[in-house]
Parts: sequence; structure tokens; C-alpha cells
Amino acid sequence: MTKKNIINPAQTNLKALFLGDKGENVDIYKTILNRMIDEHVGWRQNYMPQDLPVITPQDRRSTSFQATVDNMNEVFNVLSSRLRTDSLPWHSAGRFWGHMNSETLLPSIIAYNAAMLWNGNNVAYESSPATSKMEEEVGLDFATLMGYKKGWGHIAADGSIANLEGIWYARNFKSAPLAIKEVVPHALEDKTEWELLNMPMEETLDLLEKYQDHYDDIKNRTARSGKNLEKLGKWIVPQTKHYSWLKSADIIGVGLDQVIAAEVDSEYRMDVEKLETLIRDLAKQEIPVLGVVAVVGSTEEGQVDRVDQIVALREKLAKEGIYFYIHVDAAYGGYGRSIFLGEDDEFIPYEDIEEVYAKHGVFQGENHWLTREVYDSFKAISECESVTIDPHKMGYVPYSAGGVVIKDVRMRDIISYFATYVFKKGADIPALLGAYMLEGSKAGATAAAVWTAHRVLPLNVTGFGKLIGASLEGAFRFYRMIDGLEFKVGDKVIEMHALTRPDFNMVDYVFNEKGNTDLKKMNDLNEEFYAYASYDKGGTYGNEFITSHTDFAVPDYGNSPLKFVKGLGFSQAEWDKEQKVTILRASAMSPYAHDEKVFNEYSEKIQQAIQHKLEAIYQA
Amino acid sequence: MTKKNIINPAQTNLKALFLGDKGENVDIYKTILNRMIDEHVGWRQNYMPQDLPVITPQDRRSTSFQATVDNMNEVFNVLSSRLRTDSLPWHSAGRFWGHMNSETLLPSIIAYNAAMLWNGNNVAYESSPATSKMEEEVGLDFATLMGYKKGWGHIAADGSIANLEGIWYARNFKSAPLAIKEVVPHALEDKTEWELLNMPMEETLDLLEKYQDHYDDIKNRTARSGKNLEKLGKWIVPQTKHYSWLKSADIIGVGLDQVIAAEVDSEYRMDVEKLETLIRDLAKQEIPVLGVVAVVGSTEEGQVDRVDQIVALREKLAKEGIYFYIHVDAAYGGYGRSIFLGEDDEFIPYEDIEEVYAKHGVFQGENHWLTREVYDSFKAISECESVTIDPHKMGYVPYSAGGVVIKDVRMRDIISYFATYVFKKGADIPALLGAYMLEGSKAGATAAAVWTAHRVLPLNVTGFGKLIGASLEGAFRFYRMIDGLEFKVGDKVIEMHALTRPDFNMVDYVFNEKGNTDLKKMNDLNEEFYAYASYDKGGTYGNEFITSHTDFAVPDYGNSPLKFVKGLGFSQAEWDKEQKVTILRASAMSPYAHDEKVFNEYSEKIQQAIQHKLEAIYQA
Repeated sequence: MTKKNIINPAQTNLKALFLGDKGENVDIYKTILNRMIDEHVGWRQNYMPQDLPVITPQDRRSTSFQATVDNMNEVFNVLSSRLRTDSLPWHSAGRFWGHMNSETLLPSIIAYNAAMLWNGNNVAYESSPATSKMEEEVGLDFATLMGYKKGWGHIAADGSIANLEGIWYARNFKSAPLAIKEVVPHALEDKTEWELLNMPMEETLDLLEKYQDHYDDIKNRTARSGKNLEKLGKWIVPQTKHYSWLKSADIIGVGLDQVIAAEVDSEYRMDVEKLETLIRDLAKQEIPVLGVVAVVGSTEEGQVDRVDQIVALREKLAKEGIYFYIHVDAAYGGYGRSIFLGEDDEFIPYEDIEEVYAKHGVFQGENHWLTREVYDSFKAISECESVTIDPHKMGYVPYSAGGVVIKDVRMRDIISYFATYVFKKGADIPALLGAYMLEGSKAGATAAAVWTAHRVLPLNVTGFGKLIGASLEGAFRFYRMIDGLEFKVGDKVIEMHALTRPDFNMVDYVFNEKGNTDLKKMNDLNEEFYAYASYDKGGTYGNEFITSHTDFAVPDYGNSPLKFVKGLGFSQAEWDKEQKVTILRASAMSPYAHDEKVFNEYSEKIQQAIQHKLEAIYQA
Repeated sequence: MTKKNIINPAQTNLKALFLGDKGENVDIYKTILNRMIDEHVGWRQNYMPQDLPVITPQDRRSTSFQATVDNMNEVFNVLSSRLRTDSLPWHSAGRFWGHMNSETLLPSIIAYNAAMLWNGNNVAYESSPATSKMEEEVGLDFATLMGYKKGWGHIAADGSIANLEGIWYARNFKSAPLAIKEVVPHALEDKTEWELLNMPMEETLDLLEKYQDHYDDIKNRTARSGKNLEKLGKWIVPQTKHYSWLKSADIIGVGLDQVIAAEVDSEYRMDVEKLETLIRDLAKQEIPVLGVVAVVGSTEEGQVDRVDQIVALREKLAKEGIYFYIHVDAAYGGYGRSIFLGEDDEFIPYEDIEEVYAKHGVFQGENHWLTREVYDSFKAISECESVTIDPHKMGYVPYSAGGVVIKDVRMRDIISYFATYVFKKGADIPALLGAYMLEGSKAGATAAAVWTAHRVLPLNVTGFGKLIGASLEGAFRFYRMIDGLEFKVGDKVIEMHALTRPDFNMVDYVFNEKGNTDLKKMNDLNEEFYAYASYDKGGTYGNEFITSHTDFAVPDYGNSPLKFVKGLGFSQAEWDKEQKVTILRASAMSPYAHDEKVFNEYSEKIQQAIQHKLEAIYQA
């Protein structure tokens, strides 16, 4: 068994895969968990059964032992109390519409707990043979998910680390042709520096393979040496950039001065026409582009950049001798690609997709979500060099589990710290995984948790596709409910408006008083609503409706929110004065809210809760 | 309750804090774990008790639900089988003398499992109020452990990431005076560039505080801009460097060309006299030193650099206008500092230490370990700028949990991505922890696991000190047993020799045929012994004695192994020909092997196992 799923998933019922909003499946959880513990203890006992236990019955009866257990129990009383006092009720089937958090997969929780008893460290095969193999399989799962036929991947601590690894790849590759020319001058003697800095990835990889005898020398002259960093050009990220992109450009030594924010359109997707202008302007000044980050599932809006258009732009510019690396930040949306893969793990033709969805019961009701734009964007990921994907987001695996995928397994040698021949016999698994990634030690348990998720729910329309579908359907129920909804508070009418039609499962929205044309007043209302719908004023545990919030302000967003703001009736002057709009934000991850009956029940309850909060605000 | 422990640890019995080599405490484990699960489920049920469960009895009875549960059970059969087939028996009380792995603290395992059910993400306070507070407390624990009165710390994914954060701090600080001069020229108008690049940390921090109105401008001109990286000078790491130090210099943009390996002496500690010569030579060429890494618990030998001498050197050179950052890589040895802290968390005066150990029962037998050198080295950590400490190593917390500690909380602003005023009212906890560290999302469960470990075992001689003591005592039992031990195989006598007197709990050693003067032959013997004492030829589960190995080769180690090699009777010519010595390596972490009775029982068994392996080698 390699990367394929073990089971026939035809009958998958998502309700069997979560603990349940009220802990309905706690019996299943405990049964499997306790079995896994027993099997672990059996393993301990039967390793050298002739060795007697070192903790004797007399030890266990001793006063100091009992006192230590009592103390431990006391610590657990505190731990339990603190967790219960100050945690968020994201488990609710329909009251939590806030941060990216929800129920996680029961099998992943159990797998983590079980594997943790063996405490493998996946940095090296030697210290974790079982879980290292699982990570290798997970990496291949990721590659298949992205459509990388020769790809490779691994688990990372989180999306920030995965993004940092992405820019590390880009930086070292951009500098590689310069390094090749230094070491093997005849290989590239007719190339100018501009040509070297615009060499397509495939060509660079082929050259590195051709001159593999010089690989170490070449590597030592890449950006890893600390040289040439300033030559590599600009790193372009969308205006809606997550701060982790600034952090990673800082850390990698490329520097914030080299980061350019590409404008987004009123759908909060990168404006590819403007991107083209930008890149051409840079080229005129002989400034190369180190790379472009396309975002699939932006942190604040869940929007999906037009990866297909960015790829097409690159193809067009390549004919003019301009090439740039593309990293896809799909930390949030990466698992979403599973809803486009058929049983054979191939991308489903657009014309067949509704039929496939019907066959596998991906949506309960009508499919309000899918657009051709989103389809094309997800499809084109297979043309990009590397991807960030977070199992702890739409993989429904507990924190923390990120992931990195590369298009061509050969790429990993550019960042590695050991020669590729350091393999162990009989396995295609690196003896030292830590040599091929940014981190060192890492929990084997994380690999077990992700591996188990992928085995229970294959990464296509028969498995994860269904779960992603449930989440999208829930999101669209929420979106269709709130957009245009009105509340009456005293003599005022308060309207709800969605920011945009969501590309994925995130719904951004605002409240506004009917007829209000004062932008600051609207921002204050939403800020105040957030306070009541969060730990700030509303508490966590007793709170009947929970959401999150953000600000779209000019320094980051430019004027991209203007169309929305104007659509609400505010003038350009108001926007110019206020310079920001406060947004409420719902990451709709509940695996239950897609169900019509469930949603309708909660829809009433949350409308009531919203009414109460608005009344509290206006009466304050 | 803040960072102080909850319980009176006077009676701590370490045997109550582990699952047991044969699972002796599985009843305690299951009782607490199941209680924590019940308390979690109760919390779910009582959040809005008027909401009915969404998973109904009818759902649970359905065919698809049952089929999904069956499928899940089948996946768990595979998971369990694979874990049991391919994992390492480090749980053994006395047969595992290999990699840094052992039993981990039962309370930490349970705490992780419990907190995971709430799945907090410590990137932001909002999404994890309970576990964010725990991480803040853990960070203060770390600071107290290192003797940082104004310090701060946090959990990191692992030691590599923590080390990378250390060099990130060093890089940005080294460039800060240049940045200050650019933004506020009058503040430093009389300083030369050389003086700016040798400004003591304290002075830089005071200037940044003084000109805090310009802080953002100044930060934008530090190394985070991508500028001035090549001016910052050399990064000095010990010759015994872990490859993560090369990786981090690559990633941070300083570059491998700026890394200098400082020679180690025959005790595998950095040679501080040679370090002084090196730094003075650089200064003559006007090349500054970005920083020096002192290692407390080297990966291959467990040795402890003379931090006190490095600090003294810095004080001496500071008078001549030379200053460098010191980062302590105590990923392995960091928790070791707890054996030097008294009940009041203060460093114990050297003359009182044996008395304190006797009072708290830190050692069962005689203290063979402690030397003044090691004492002074640990003590001087409080004078260094930052420290890496891994709870998943000597903190006996499951993978993965690293940590970073800084001497002065003000330092964190130099790497942050939000202004310091982004605090939430009523708490000293940053609203966005992710803005003050390299990573983003991170498991709240890790914080709970480390927090629980620190509450059950305080970080001083009453708690962790005892556990560290047990580990050291076990290591010294092993060291004293093997050094000089002889085996008779046919007509040959095979001797065992320890590499050096261990500074900590790692014992490196070799086998050699009596009278053999052929270094390659000895290396082959040890390589072969390793094969039999590892998964390679010996298997994992059925293996009666397990160890790990490494090579000390000239490219990394220079001639530092020469004294040891000569002491075994090999000539200089042999060393020059062979250029490496193969070493076997035992990280002695068992919490049981310090016990005289336990050790003696296993000592016979492992000598027998070694005998069998040697016979197998010689008969092959």
C-alpha cells in the first residue's frame, strides 16, 4: 500500500468522522483511542518480555508515588478549568462564524494521540521509520492533489514556514544560472546576466542535472553563499498580502525593499493586467522578477487569485525572455483542489463536473458556488513551481500541520544539505528528511494524523471533496442568508451586506444603518458588533453568535474596497477621509451547516442573537 | 497563579510521571485521559444546552455511518500495525542507548491530547485565549530558567527554527545602529561605521527606546530591508556545528560565505583562545563579528562550550571596541540549567551545591558528573542575548516543541511586524504572538504540554533538576561501565573506550580490537556494530541493544579527534590517511537507568547483547 486509500469510500458519511458538536461520537472516540493505547502498551510489554517492569507494585503503593499522582491530578484540574474557561466554542454546528477553526477529524485526533506514544522524530528515517514512511506518502498525496506528476512534498510546521521555504526555493533557483556560469562557464557563455536571471525552471533543472558532478560547487555559489541577493529582483505578492509574506522576505535576506504589492481588483484577486504592466515596467529598467505569489484562499477574504491568468502571462512573457517563479500560497485553499479531482485523481473536465458531483453527493442542494474562474484557477496550480498547503486549515487536521509541495522532485537538491546519494537502501525515502527542508525535528505524530486523514478521506471527490463541498455549501447558505438581511432596532433599520460573492468558504460582511452615509459611523458599528460577537465584550462560552473582524485600510488595500464602499452609498470623499472599512469575517468550516435542516434551525437562532447584540449596542 | 508551580513538589517520585517501560502506569494514563475527554465533552454539551445534537441516533444507526466507522477501524488497524512494526523501543529502561529519544512525561502526553480537543491556535490570542496564556507563562519560565530577569520567551516548532530566530535577532540588531544613524543622524554622528557595527546590545536597546518615535523608520532600514547584509561580518559557530547552523545562515541571507567554524579542543568544546585570535585577526581587517554561537549540549557529543570564557572574552574585547552577539544553542542542554537552580529559582552557589543535591535527593549515588567548568558554563548563559531550548529533548515533552528565550523583552520589537501598542487590555500578552516570532500558526496543545510539564516538575532542583539528575546519573553509570570494558570473541579481545568524559548525558564510544593499529579496521568494526545495533541489520523490535553512530571527519572536525585516536594507539599517519573516526553514540535519557538495581540488571543483559553482536560480526 503506497499512497492509495485503503478503503472503499463510496459510502462515506461525514458525521461518523467528527466527535460531534455535542460529543455525540464520544463512544467511538474512546473505543478506538483506548484500543490504540492498549496496542501500544502490548508492544511495550512484548519487547523483551523477559525484562521485568521497573515500576513495581510497591513503588506504586508508596507515599511519594501517591503524592505525585495527587499533585498531577491537581495540575489537571487547573488545566481543565483553564481550557474550559477560556476556549472558543467553534465546535458549535451553527453559532461559530469566525476564525478558521472548527471540529477537526476524529481519526486525525486519535492518530495523533496514538502515534505520539511512539514519539517518532521525522527529521531522520532512523528515529522514526514508521512515521517517516507516512510523511513520504503524504508528500506524494500532496503532489497528486496539485497535479504534479513528478512532484514531491512534505509536512511543515505551518503555512508561514512553508511560505518561507517557497521563497527559499525561488531565491536559490533564481541565482542558480549565475552560479552555473561561474562554475561551468562554457555551459552558458553566450548568455547575458539578464538572460541568466530569466531562465525557465525546467532549463535550470536540466542544466543542474547535466552538470551534476559540479553540483556542490554550483550550490555553494548560489544565493546560499550570501552573494547576489540584490540582483535577484522583485518579489511580487498580492496587495491583500498576509504579513507572513513580509516576514519571509525579511528572513530570507531578499528584503522588504524588494517586495512589491500587486494591486487587487474589486473581487480581491490580483489584477493580472496591472501585474503585466508592472513586470514590463521592471523589465524596461532591467529589474528581474524573483517570483510572484498567487494566493488560493486569501486570509481575509478567502478569494482565489486567477492562477490561470498568471500562468498564461508567464507563458506570454517567456517568449520575450522574461521568466519568474510562481509560488501558490494555498495554505487555506489547497485542500479545495480535491473537489476538482475524480476517482482517478485526475482533474475533472468542466462539462462533467455537475454529473460527478451528483454521483458522489458532493452537494446536498443546488451548487451555488462553482464558477469557471475558480475552476480554471485551481486547475492551473499544476503549472506553478511550489505550493503551500495547510492540513490544519481545510484539511481538518488539528494544529499544527502545514505542508510544502514542489512540482519536480529534483528541485529539492537546490536547498538540501547533503548529497542526494544519502539514501538508505530499499527505500525511496531520504535518510535525513531534515536535510531537504527548513525545519529539523518534527513530530512523527503529525505525519500519522495527516496520513490517517488522507486514508479515511481520499484527496478527491470521493473523500475530501465531499467535506470541502459541505463547507462550501454551508458558506453559501450563510452568504445567501445574510446578504441584504435587515434588522429593526428601535426606529432604525440595520442592513447586512456581503463584501463580495465568495470564491471559497469565507464570507465577509458588514452591518450598516439604512440611509447612513457616514463611513466612520459604519466602521464603529461593525467594530462594536465584533466586540459583542467575540471574547471582547461577549465572552466566549456564553456567546450565542461568534464572528471575527478585520480592517481593509488604504496602506494595505489601496482603493480596492472603494467599489464595495460606494455600492453601500458612501461617497468617494468619505472613503478618502476615513481610509478604511471595518469588515466582519466568517470562515465557514462547520461540517454540519450545509444540511438544510440544521442550517435553518441555526439561521433563526443566530438572527435572534444578532438582533440582541444590535439592541445591546444601540441601547448602550 | 502565574509562572509558579501549583504543587508542593517535595515528594516528587519520577516513576509516577511516566507510562512505564512496560506500561505499568497505563491505568493512571487512561483514567486521567478519559476524565479530560469527559470534561471536554461536558463543555461541548453545556455550550448552549438548548441546541440539540446534530448527529442523531438514526444517523448513527445508518448503513453509511456504520460503513464509515468500519472503514475508519480498518485504517486504524493499518496504522497500529505500521507503528508497531517500524518503531524504536526507546521505552526500554536499559536497552536503548541511541538517539535522543526516551519515555516522555505522561502528564505532557495527556495535556497535549486534552488541549488538542480544543485545538487552539496560539498565533493570535483571540483564537486561543487559554493556551496563549500558558505559552506566555512557559516563556517566563524559560526566562527564569536562563537567569534573565527582564527576559521573554516562547515556544517554537523545533531547535532549527529557534536557531534561525536567534540569527534573525542577531542580524537585525547588528544592522540597527546603522539604521539609527540613517534616521536620526545626530544620535550617532560621532560614530564610525566600525563603532556602529560593534555597539553593545544594551546601548542599541537604549537608543531604540530613546528614539521610539522613529522606531518604524529605523526598523525599515535594518537588515530586514535586504540592505547591508554583507557588512555585518562573520557568524562564528563551533566546528562541531550542527548542519542546522549552515542552513540558518543560508536562509537568513547572511550566507555560508560568512560562516566561520571555530576550532574545538580535544574535549569538543570551542577553543576560546583560538576564538580570540580569530576575532582579533578579523578586527585587524576591519571585519566585524556578527555573532558567536555557544553550544550547550552538542548534538554529537553532548559537550558544553565554555560559555563563561566566551562571555569573559567579549567583556575583554568590548574594552577595545569589539562587540558580538552571543546566541546559546542549548536545544539539547537547556533544561540542564534546572539542576543549578535552588527552590528560589536562583543559581545555587557552587559551595552549597552538594548539600542542596543531598537535600532534594538529586542523585541516588555519588555525583560523578559535576565539574566546575560545566557549572560555570551553565551559569554564564544569563549573560548571553538569546537561547535555543527544546522541550522535546531534555524537557521530556513529546515532539515537536522547541523554544526561544531572549534576555530583554525589548529585543522582540526588532523582529516584530506590528507596533508594540497592539496589546489587548487587561493582559500583558501580545494579541498576535505570530507577529513576534518566525512561525505563524502553532498548536495551543504544545503550550499546554510544556506548561503541564513545568507545573508538575518546576524548573529547579525540586523538579526538573531531579529528572536531569537521574539522566546524568544513568549516563555516568553507562560511561563508567563501558570505558575500558573488554569482550573476548574467539581469540580476539575487543575493548570499549569512551570518547571523552561527558559534560552532560551523552556517552560517545568506540570498539577496537586489542592491538589493532589500523584505523580503517576500527572504523569498519564500529560501522558494522552500529548496523547490528540498529534497524539496519539488527531490526528494531527484536533488537536487544540499540545505539546510534556518527563520523568525526576532517572536513567538519579538523584534527580535534586526533588526541583520542592517538590515545587508542593509532599513528598520526593513520589519521592522515583515514581522515575520520566512526563513533558510537548514546544519548542516555532513560528516567530509570540511574537506579543502581535497574542499571545492574540491564548492565548484564546489554553486555551479553554486545557479546552476541560482536560474535555475529566476527563470524560473518
